[in-house]
Amino acid sequence: MQFELTREYIDQLKQIIDDKNEAEAVSQMKELHPADIAEIYDELDIEEAKFLYLLLDGDTAANVLAELEDDDRDRFLKALPVEVIAKQFIDRMNSDDAADVIGGLSDEQQERILFHINDIEQAGDIVDLLHYDDDTAGGLMAKELVKVNENWTVLTCLRELSRQAEDIDEIYYVYVVDDDDILKGTISLKKMILSSTSARISNIYLPDAMAVHTDAKDEDVARIMEKYDLVAIPVIDSIGRLMGRITIDDVVDVIRDEAEKDYQMASGLTEDVESNDSVWIQTRARLPWLLIGMLGGLISAFVISTHENDLGINPAMAFFIPLITAMGGNVGVQSAAIIVQGLANNSLGFESTFSRLMRELTGALVNGIICSGIVFIVNTITGNSQDLTISVSAALFSVIIFASLFGTLIPLTLNKLKVDPALATGPFVTTLNDIVGLFIYLSIGAYFLGLV
Amino acid sequence: MQFELTREYIDQLKQIIDDKNEAEAVSQMKELHPADIAEIYDELDIEEAKFLYLLLDGDTAANVLAELEDDDRDRFLKALPVEVIAKQFIDRMNSDDAADVIGGLSDEQQERILFHINDIEQAGDIVDLLHYDDDTAGGLMAKELVKVNENWTVLTCLRELSRQAEDIDEIYYVYVVDDDDILKGTISLKKMILSSTSARISNIYLPDAMAVHTDAKDEDVARIMEKYDLVAIPVIDSIGRLMGRITIDDVVDVIRDEAEKDYQMASGLTEDVESNDSVWIQTRARLPWLLIGMLGGLISAFVISTHENDLGINPAMAFFIPLITAMGGNVGVQSAAIIVQGLANNSLGFESTFSRLMRELTGALVNGIICSGIVFIVNTITGNSQDLTISVSAALFSVIIFASLFGTLIPLTLNKLKVDPALATGPFVTTLNDIVGLFIYLSIGAYFLGLV
Repeated sequence: MQFELTREYIDQLKQIIDDKNEAEAVSQMKELHPADIAEIYDELDIEEAKFLYLLLDGDTAANVLAELEDDDRDRFLKALPVEVIAKQFIDRMNSDDAADVIGGLSDEQQERILFHINDIEQAGDIVDLLHYDDDTAGGLMAKELVKVNENWTVLTCLRELSRQAEDIDEIYYVYVVDDDDILKGTISLKKMILSSTSARISNIYLPDAMAVHTDAKDEDVARIMEKYDLVAIPVIDSIGRLMGRITIDDVVDVIRDEAEKDYQMASGLTEDVESNDSVWIQTRARLPWLLIGMLGGLISAFVISTHENDLGINPAMAFFIPLITAMGGNVGVQSAAIIVQGLANNSLGFESTFSRLMRELTGALVNGIICSGIVFIVNTITGNSQDLTISVSAALFSVIIFASLFGTLIPLTLNKLKVDPALATGPFVTTLNDIVGLFIYLSIGAYFLGLV
Repeated sequence: MQFELTREYIDQLKQIIDDKNEAEAVSQMKELHPADIAEIYDELDIEEAKFLYLLLDGDTAANVLAELEDDDRDRFLKALPVEVIAKQFIDRMNSDDAADVIGGLSDEQQERILFHINDIEQAGDIVDLLHYDDDTAGGLMAKELVKVNENWTVLTCLRELSRQAEDIDEIYYVYVVDDDDILKGTISLKKMILSSTSARISNIYLPDAMAVHTDAKDEDVARIMEKYDLVAIPVIDSIGRLMGRITIDDVVDVIRDEAEKDYQMASGLTEDVESNDSVWIQTRARLPWLLIGMLGGLISAFVISTHENDLGINPAMAFFIPLITAMGGNVGVQSAAIIVQGLANNSLGFESTFSRLMRELTGALVNGIICSGIVFIVNTITGNSQDLTISVSAALFSVIIFASLFGTLIPLTLNKLKVDPALATGPFVTTLNDIVGLFIYLSIGAYFLGLV
């Protein structure tokens, strides 16, 4: 039922394009959803994509443009004259998609496109939307919505809906406003259909609609829509006037992006980087974290070098360096990830930092006793010296305790300082853990091995 | 406009409950959305929560139960008699929520609750839904939907809708079926309102509705709804009969869960664990990964021990062990995360594994040259021996290349083997990277330092 993109399909399509078989290409594209066409474009080179694109009818072409990924879209926009962009695409798009498309262009290009838009209302909507930051409710919202006056009857509303609804794909809620355009509440189409046509809206609408301000953060909008299971939410200005609406499909992107951002941070990637991106983009995303890790490695080298003599006398101490650093890193990342995820999905509650640390400490004691106990047994069996055995287990235990507390405390502190707590799961903090862990291990080792 | 839970609010509410002030509690709860009440419950102990719960009206209580987190819900269900559960809550819920609530109980409890449900249709729906696995379209769907026969007129439909729509919160799509209940397409309320009341549905409906089979995986359902920006999707059986519908709010949970699962895997947590969970649950989620990391650390110790004599002669070799293991880990996790994220959001395309590895290799060469170059300069400046300087840089370079290729290859291979590729970003593979990295470093070191 759904289209599934296969390599065979792409190969066959490339052949059709190669043959300049326009009729066949048109008939193939006709069966597809714009989202499928956008997916196909990802696999074509620019000339192939352009050939297909110029065969699409206007509405489909506009929808495909809205569905394209940012970098693919930019390539396209560069390849087409502004007049075509304005008249063929922007005019036909929803205002939020149009603002997104235009928002990525230079000021000069924006002006030239806006100048060429026929529909003055659409141009005005886009200009309004361009004022808002991308990551606010204003930046997410579309101006297209269906609103009715609280003083109308159901019959007037149904007539007015026929007029307003022309531009809008789907109606999820009908918003009720007063004479000053202040949002009063909502009324569902279902309710209207089930009510008498002479009923006044003010008597049957649902007051107290959940709404967000234009300057609300996109993550907060997502959280509200997710929590209250909303499909669309109205956006109001500071005096309560209805400015636009946000639909759930835009918010799904925000939710996914936010979750991916934490994941990237934890994996040591500074930006949204894809497997298909160029080596240059990948390096830009990866190298900064690698350099931090490297700096940490060099500091670790320095820490160990202060114990060079000890190692000369007792080289076996070096055996357990990777064990200590790895365990410090693993424990720290686990502790931090639990906090980061709790902050992300708002499930931390109101427990105090102190009691949180206390529970973390209890868990760390359990893990520490089990792990250092096992290492103690293994080292005893494999015949390592008793001093070394004690040193390693004592250090491992200390490192697990330290990393647990550190891993819990850092993201909580970062969050209070309004810094992204996910930083605490990345290479930055694991590196710090490595250094402190080594310091603990070598100090304990030097003490127990009588090398002080 | 939205309710925001604060510690002050909770403290004040606990006071009201302590005072057994029922009137005040009722008036407080009346203003809240069930999702807010569910959030508040999270912060109360069971007796406090029960006090509030018994004051709620039936519909609100049923909705709160559906919104509660699984463990909170189980506590509640244990505290209430089955008859109350059946008549007060299950009867009032949507079939999908009801099946979710009952699905968590023992077979015997399920039967006792089903026996007490008044509405035989609801009981039948729940029994049907309990047959499906949780992670399939059948497990996600609700039986409540609005369907019309293709042979009806708009007028008949509108009348029928008034009847059907009673049980349903929101109508997003009206499904069109034939006499055998086979899904033919959809018709929007908007279209019905805009059409003449005597029009036949078969002439105005939108054929070819996007639909999923009952046994489709939940992740695939999420991907389809996300890609095509759907608010609801119909679910059909193997011969195309309309069985139910899935709404976007249920899918948002799937999307979030999936993203979080990858994150947990990368952070070394085996299950969805929260900061507020007991020490026991936390330990169960964390210890397995720690033990894997520890086993790796012990193997690393063994690898290093085979070079004990070299280290005795040249203890400075030990300085750079953390640098090598940390860089191997960081690079490997980066490479794997890029692939895992590409697989998760379906953006990998059809590039062959070979060409993917080739691009990864180019990037690794760039990162490797920069990192090992810097380390070379630092070691030269700090006056380390030339042999050691060369060994460390050569090993670092090799480890970066190896970890890049390994980090790319492993998740792709796991994915082909139908194992969760996110495994490649967790402690399992970083540990493996540590061991191989050490082996490379010590072998190169032994060679350059003339210790072979």
